[in-house]
Amino acid sequence: MMMDHPLLITTMLHRARKLFPKKEVFSRCFDQDHRLTYSQFYERTCRLANVLASLGVKPGDRIGSFAWNNHRHLELYFAVPCSGAVLHTINLRLFPDQLVHVINHAEDKIIFIDEDLVPLLARIADQLTTVEKFIILSDKDELPEINLPRALSYEKLLAEAPAEYDFPEDLDENTPAAMCYTTATTGAPKGVIYTHRSIYLHAMMVALPDVLNVRERDSILPVVPMFHVLSWGIPYAGVWMGSKLVLPGRLLTPEAICKLIEEEKVTLPVGVPTIWIGLHQHLQSGASYDFSSVTYIVNGGSAISKSLIKSFEENYGIKVLHGYGMTETSPVVLISEPKSYIDQWDPDRRYAQQARQGLVVPGTEMKIVDVNGKEVAWDGKEMGELCFKGPWIADSYYRDPERSAEAFRDGWLHTGDIVTIDEEGYIFIQDRAKDLIKSGGEWISSIDLENTIMAHPDVVEAAVIAIPDEKWVERPMACIVLKESAREEVDQQDILEFLKDKVAKWWIPDRVLFLDEIPKTSVGKFNKKELRKTYS
Amino acid sequence: MMMDHPLLITTMLHRARKLFPKKEVFSRCFDQDHRLTYSQFYERTCRLANVLASLGVKPGDRIGSFAWNNHRHLELYFAVPCSGAVLHTINLRLFPDQLVHVINHAEDKIIFIDEDLVPLLARIADQLTTVEKFIILSDKDELPEINLPRALSYEKLLAEAPAEYDFPEDLDENTPAAMCYTTATTGAPKGVIYTHRSIYLHAMMVALPDVLNVRERDSILPVVPMFHVLSWGIPYAGVWMGSKLVLPGRLLTPEAICKLIEEEKVTLPVGVPTIWIGLHQHLQSGASYDFSSVTYIVNGGSAISKSLIKSFEENYGIKVLHGYGMTETSPVVLISEPKSYIDQWDPDRRYAQQARQGLVVPGTEMKIVDVNGKEVAWDGKEMGELCFKGPWIADSYYRDPERSAEAFRDGWLHTGDIVTIDEEGYIFIQDRAKDLIKSGGEWISSIDLENTIMAHPDVVEAAVIAIPDEKWVERPMACIVLKESAREEVDQQDILEFLKDKVAKWWIPDRVLFLDEIPKTSVGKFNKKELRKTYS
Repeated sequence: MMMDHPLLITTMLHRARKLFPKKEVFSRCFDQDHRLTYSQFYERTCRLANVLASLGVKPGDRIGSFAWNNHRHLELYFAVPCSGAVLHTINLRLFPDQLVHVINHAEDKIIFIDEDLVPLLARIADQLTTVEKFIILSDKDELPEINLPRALSYEKLLAEAPAEYDFPEDLDENTPAAMCYTTATTGAPKGVIYTHRSIYLHAMMVALPDVLNVRERDSILPVVPMFHVLSWGIPYAGVWMGSKLVLPGRLLTPEAICKLIEEEKVTLPVGVPTIWIGLHQHLQSGASYDFSSVTYIVNGGSAISKSLIKSFEENYGIKVLHGYGMTETSPVVLISEPKSYIDQWDPDRRYAQQARQGLVVPGTEMKIVDVNGKEVAWDGKEMGELCFKGPWIADSYYRDPERSAEAFRDGWLHTGDIVTIDEEGYIFIQDRAKDLIKSGGEWISSIDLENTIMAHPDVVEAAVIAIPDEKWVERPMACIVLKESAREEVDQQDILEFLKDKVAKWWIPDRVLFLDEIPKTSVGKFNKKELRKTYS
Repeated sequence: MMMDHPLLITTMLHRARKLFPKKEVFSRCFDQDHRLTYSQFYERTCRLANVLASLGVKPGDRIGSFAWNNHRHLELYFAVPCSGAVLHTINLRLFPDQLVHVINHAEDKIIFIDEDLVPLLARIADQLTTVEKFIILSDKDELPEINLPRALSYEKLLAEAPAEYDFPEDLDENTPAAMCYTTATTGAPKGVIYTHRSIYLHAMMVALPDVLNVRERDSILPVVPMFHVLSWGIPYAGVWMGSKLVLPGRLLTPEAICKLIEEEKVTLPVGVPTIWIGLHQHLQSGASYDFSSVTYIVNGGSAISKSLIKSFEENYGIKVLHGYGMTETSPVVLISEPKSYIDQWDPDRRYAQQARQGLVVPGTEMKIVDVNGKEVAWDGKEMGELCFKGPWIADSYYRDPERSAEAFRDGWLHTGDIVTIDEEGYIFIQDRAKDLIKSGGEWISSIDLENTIMAHPDVVEAAVIAIPDEKWVERPMACIVLKESAREEVDQQDILEFLKDKVAKWWIPDRVLFLDEIPKTSVGKFNKKELRKTYS
């Protein structure tokens, strides 16, 4: 038979240091940029593992990280799970009471913090009941002056630790390796625990040519934060395959990202639509860079509009690859790679296809069920709830039996996303179950409507919410941000006129509201709960 | 935590039929060529699973296949393991007594046979103690006249079986799925059992961009037989990713292969050096084809010479990708993909690098140990035995504790291959442990010497063996096949002269023997045991 060999993150680390010791990690920190080879990265990771041991970290202990995308965060990605502990990547953008909740709920024993983020934790430090030490990630020789108790310097600890460490080879592959909390829109954030096995399988799947296509010759720029679902597994896949990693730190302006792409010859920039919308505006304003290294822009987190995909390709020669996932799915489960014969479709139809959430990735099982639990037809019309199962899909939330029972039923994760699936198997999100507008017994997809409105040349952002209606129960209202140049010119009538031949008549919003900005959640999605509260 | 979801071959089958129902399998059979969509293929696979059930096949039963590369063999690849039984792909090229041994040793219950192969089994049928039924794979409506007892027609059984089948989703991932026997050079063939888990993980790894890079848009031609280590996992990876498969049947002449590549727009032809040497000669003789679809030729099974890699690339614009594996390793464990910075090396140095067996693939652990068990230096000089462990490496031979104990020690598979590893981590096979020539207390690599001799423009094949020597214990002798045009012109002196500035003086063979042909084993490797017996 076959060896009973566990699937461990450790194998990625060893492959990088043995086969790709000269390959590079670029890291932008608060004070300076760093360049490390995988050989140096490995040594520092060993030192960090020794530091963890010397601080009394035991198998299964939760270790928090509160950091931007940089090399020290990458070291934590490997040293913590490979030595048997669990990395809890804390979302910087949570509100203070949420931060207190997740850190206490996870029972983090140590938290590693970027120096510029110290103030965010300092103000809640006295409410953290389990944290024994704060380790400050900084380039400065001496600890910066901070008002955190029990604080130590990361670099000082590393310098004093032995440079060699024997990572255990006999961990069970189902050992917890990392955890993230989702930003629940109601109630406290929900924790998801990833195992060595799930991270290993997900990373290999992500590297497949029809998923993100991660190769040794790539230079990968994860703009998506490392505190956001393990940066979609990119750091693990990249290290494993020996890719160059470009970790951009905190400065994520369009200019900074464009310069990094040009200077570090990035092949695979990966991030959320907000980033690509900003970058696109920057290019449209006349900025010019050498993007010849880019294979494609990878978009995830939220949908990206067909018009943006089209403009990137036709105006700048940059292909956009759109994927879908969530904290509970590790995250990548759908990818909108066009099938070979879609190349022959006319471009507009192809762009529309690429804007869909895509095909289910290898190794994940998917079904779409209507309210009666019946699978919907593959006709691009019938709506149903998207459900998943597979080796990198969660089966529960951490210590939360009640909400686990809601989402995980009959062996499936019920995502709460209402979707259609077309004849080619491409899934298209219509809405979150709770954001659907129920008008006169029919469903209106707020997202579909938003995308249609965003195709208007003067619209930057659009969020559609339900407002209560006596006759129809609910009716849509559009909240729109216009381009600055158009703010004096475009009015409600222009928008409704624009929609007339594009959506069903009864989908046309009753009201249009022009805002300076759409409120966002901590992960940059439209905060519709907030909008509903304010305007309904 | 994460779902306890088993890694099963079944997921590949479902993905192909759901997402890629229109994609195609081309299949060349005895009477005619077939084209099936994955949708048709899936239905036939369901029918086959029903046939197996109706024939009384139980979980764990061994089902033999004795067939070329065609769609019926592919149906067996999925229907047998996905319904819980074990597919034993029998090597057509075994000698009759070996065939009797492997079929009885595996206890095959049913054997599926291509019609033209019936005579090979008919002559040993009365010695097969466990086989209850022979199922004939044929396009003919009526069973061809055959002298096999208990024979049934595959197509007739399929036509009568229901078109739907519920493949079990709850198999343990460690359930045996398939088995192959190695062609041991001494003693009976040794059996290796693959599990659902090992085949799943190996197929995903094989599809990685830096391994074989298997995409939906590929058209894959497995020239390597489907009875040879599951055709290197290609059929599984291809079906999973939705690639087009081109199954070439029995006719493997250079002309037939070239035509298939051209007509089916093959991107990835996969096979052993004998095939590529033949194809190269065919091209050199002036034959011309459109090979613009080819991404690269994948070579495995044995080494391919640097000069052939160079000629394919420089004269025909075809890149060659060389890999290494064995029955015990599923098989792919090394791949000679050049690292990005090797692109900048001068071409000759790069070709030499590509001719090495390559880098260890993601997920496999490797070590190279000298006679004392000490790991050798990464200097391209120190020789040691190559050892592997990992989730798709065998831990034993089937019902063979004695020879299992020899090869599997301390958790490692000891391959018996003597190799060096260079600073970049590329492994280079020097010899089989038993083929090394021990001359005056030093080792001479027979393979290294063969490759050097084969670089001579008039040499087609060269095998080097040890002959006993009173003074030096052993000395090398070269057995050489010359190009027909050179047979009157080249003599021993020319060869020795050619070697003079290319190898150490004491490596130069004592004798050169010119043969019409080098004897081969059943899998097409040089049969050195035979040569040694004849000439020493």
